[in-house]
Amino acid sequence: MEATFDPASLTYNDAGLIPAIAQDEAGEVLMMAWMNAQSLAETLETGRVTYWSRSRQSFWRKGESSGHVQTLIDFRVDCDRDTILLIVRQEGPACHTNRRSCFYTAIRDGAEVELMTPIA
Amino acid sequence: MEATFDPASLTYNDAGLIPAIAQDEAGEVLMMAWMNAQSLAETLETGRVTYWSRSRQSFWRKGESSGHVQTLIDFRVDCDRDTILLIVRQEGPACHTNRRSCFYTAIRDGAEVELMTPIA
Repeated sequence: MEATFDPASLTYNDAGLIPAIAQDEAGEVLMMAWMNAQSLAETLETGRVTYWSRSRQSFWRKGESSGHVQTLIDFRVDCDRDTILLIVRQEGPACHTNRRSCFYTAIRDGAEVELMTPIA
Repeated sequence: MEATFDPASLTYNDAGLIPAIAQDEAGEVLMMAWMNAQSLAETLETGRVTYWSRSRQSFWRKGESSGHVQTLIDFRVDCDRDTILLIVRQEGPACHTNRRSCFYTAIRDGAEVELMTPIA
C-alpha cells in the first residue's frame, strides 16, 4: 500500500507539536525532541533533522551550532500517527552534555547509575 | 555517581505525564506511550511495564488483556529528565494492530510505505 504522505494527516498536540525519537542506524536511541509540521517538512525535504525548540520557540536545526548534525536515513510514523521515529546518522554526540545518547542514566535497585561519560 | 531515585524528580507535563519509549533488547523501537508518577513507580516495583492510558484515563498494564506483556529489563531517563527509555522483553506484538512495532510505516519519496505485516 502506498499513499502520498501529508504532514497534516499526523496528530499534533495542542501546541502543534509531535514527539520525534531519534535512533541511530546501529539501534541506539539517542534522544527525543519535538517537531511541528514545518520542521517535519523541512526534515523530509533537506534530509537534515530539524526539530522545534520549545524553550526557544524556534527551529532547531540539529548540529547547526555544534556540528553534531543528524542526517535522516529513514522517517517512520506510528499506528496512531502521533509519534515519529527517525533513523539517523549521528555526527558526534547527540546530547548537549557531550554524551552519545541523552539516555545515559539508568535506574537500578532504586538508585541512579550513570552509563556513559562525555566524549572527550 | 549513585543517588537514590525519586520519581518526583522527573519533569511531567501539565497533565502529569511523561513520555516513555519502549525498545526491545535487540534494539527495535516498539512504541511510545505515557506514564504518570504512579504507573512509573509500579513499573519499577513490579518489573511489568504499566503506562497511563490518556484515552481511558486509567492504568494500562501492558498485555493485561492481550497477554502481550512487556517485562522491564532496564529503565533510563534522559538528560532533561522529561523522557523515559524502557528496555523491555516484549511478549508477542507490541502494537494493537498485531505488528511487532507501532512504527511500521515509513515515509519514502513522499509516499507511505508499510514495512511490517501483522503477526498471524
